[in-house]
Amino acid sequence: MTEDDLIAQIRDRIRGVPAERLLLGIGDDAAVWQPSRNNRSVVTTDALIEGVHFTRAAMTAHDVGHRALAANLSDIAAMGARPVLATIALGFPSQTDPGWLLAMYDGIAALAKPSRCAIAGGDLTRAPAITLAITVVGEVRSSNLKTRAGARPGDVIAVSGPLGGSRAGLLLALERPELAADPAFAELLAAYRTPKPRLAEGRWLAASRHVRAMMDLSDGLSTDLGRLCAASQVGARVETVPVHPAARRLAATTGDDAERWALDGGEDYELLLAVERRAFAHLARRFHGRFGRELLAVGRISAQSGVRRVDGVPIVPAGWDHLRDADT
Amino acid sequence: MTEDDLIAQIRDRIRGVPAERLLLGIGDDAAVWQPSRNNRSVVTTDALIEGVHFTRAAMTAHDVGHRALAANLSDIAAMGARPVLATIALGFPSQTDPGWLLAMYDGIAALAKPSRCAIAGGDLTRAPAITLAITVVGEVRSSNLKTRAGARPGDVIAVSGPLGGSRAGLLLALERPELAADPAFAELLAAYRTPKPRLAEGRWLAASRHVRAMMDLSDGLSTDLGRLCAASQVGARVETVPVHPAARRLAATTGDDAERWALDGGEDYELLLAVERRAFAHLARRFHGRFGRELLAVGRISAQSGVRRVDGVPIVPAGWDHLRDADT
Repeated sequence: MTEDDLIAQIRDRIRGVPAERLLLGIGDDAAVWQPSRNNRSVVTTDALIEGVHFTRAAMTAHDVGHRALAANLSDIAAMGARPVLATIALGFPSQTDPGWLLAMYDGIAALAKPSRCAIAGGDLTRAPAITLAITVVGEVRSSNLKTRAGARPGDVIAVSGPLGGSRAGLLLALERPELAADPAFAELLAAYRTPKPRLAEGRWLAASRHVRAMMDLSDGLSTDLGRLCAASQVGARVETVPVHPAARRLAATTGDDAERWALDGGEDYELLLAVERRAFAHLARRFHGRFGRELLAVGRISAQSGVRRVDGVPIVPAGWDHLRDADT
Repeated sequence: MTEDDLIAQIRDRIRGVPAERLLLGIGDDAAVWQPSRNNRSVVTTDALIEGVHFTRAAMTAHDVGHRALAANLSDIAAMGARPVLATIALGFPSQTDPGWLLAMYDGIAALAKPSRCAIAGGDLTRAPAITLAITVVGEVRSSNLKTRAGARPGDVIAVSGPLGGSRAGLLLALERPELAADPAFAELLAAYRTPKPRLAEGRWLAASRHVRAMMDLSDGLSTDLGRLCAASQVGARVETVPVHPAARRLAATTGDDAERWALDGGEDYELLLAVERRAFAHLARRFHGRFGRELLAVGRISAQSGVRRVDGVPIVPAGWDHLRDADT
């Protein structure tokens, strides 16, 4: 059973639960409700589990805290919202060093602070492995809310930054520590260890009516672009995969395929968006002026379903399926 | 290190994180923020972990789902709020029967439905044990919000129902299955397996300005009354421990101390409140008229700190400390 299969069956099980106050439920980056007339609140949750998402050998406590909050804030950014608060459910084995746990909270706080995200409380419990489930609530003006749906044929598909850096950093951290000292690769390690949620970029892009759909890239372009297309009932033609330049250099050294990292690696936490075609060049110039980084065109939304390269070859979802290794 | 010690150290770590929009943070049943002028949103999170909070041998999947949501809804009730939505972070080992997981969602949905709590999404992941972290968002009119602070000397301490039923049900389920078939004990099993969050009671009580402080009883009266007193900077004198009648009968059979179950057992999910003395009798009559159940007086709030019996003997917090068995 894949993750999407299980989600579909779970949806069946919760049919009939009243949801009249919910504007958007399961299936986008965050759920949306309406606390008052002109405001929308959004909520997202994400868990990191030791042995599944990280090991204490390969990642510092600080980075585990940072990554767990970053994954949630990235979902908030993808809705065009700003974070309000986070709750933290933490489970840990009885022999865990409290210093490790407190350093993890330092990592959470170090990202929460510039993100202006309050830490509102949570739950502490015993668990067989360190288990960190964070929920973040955010807010957005109703007119600015962006979802995965809304892309139309002809729209430009773009990303807020180059891809594959996180996957390259993972390789450095786990398999090629001798290359990790190379300053040319430092930004890859940082992309993996302390990814930056694109909060300011997300809010800025959400304020443009020319941005028709938006989501964050957590599971890889090959998987996530398919999800955006499915939600918008369109397809996509990929012209360029924007590979992180340092990842390209690393792949040349290690004999790997950097474009695969960019397509399938996941955890880059850049924003993926569909922009009205005629507005794209102007939006990209303003984006560069505002953030000093490129809004990178990936391809075009098509009426024909499915994600394909320009030569028609399908791009198969090969990103992170959290249940891929399931026996079931 | 106890749970309260660790929480205190975590608070230190997150000092400096902006929290200007937060009206209430760590330390109450739920955190509170202000989505608009006259409204307050509340959020609470609670995790259930296999082997720590339940075993698949002792509890059905349906009951695990029910209990996990009930614990959160009880916190929402304690704030006087009504639930809006829940998010669910679920981790499970690869060999887990999907049927078990879906039955767990059935249990969640069966309680979410009458509680009018939407299921807004969540996260699925591998984990070494079944890990269910639920976050619930609720709303309350600003004038009705109740917290643990606000109790004053002379107030009547009351609970929304008798205590110890859940602990008695746990004994039946785990150790005395031969007694579990006795219809006299069925309500104890139900109190343990499918506790009812006091949502309607919480909202009704919150609408009274005579109710000065409220919380839910999740960790036991001996622990939770101390927390209410600490938050209100008062003490308490306990005159009567309202023991669940069926628990008293079971204890007589098994040779246990039913009052200890009521004081320390936890997970009864009744509401604990401090009521202005002169208003108590009238409120209790109206409560009975409305809900057909007793509002049970436990004792009085005192100016002197500490929780004591009328004879002066201290009541020591002996409820559930989630980290009590820690080596650290």
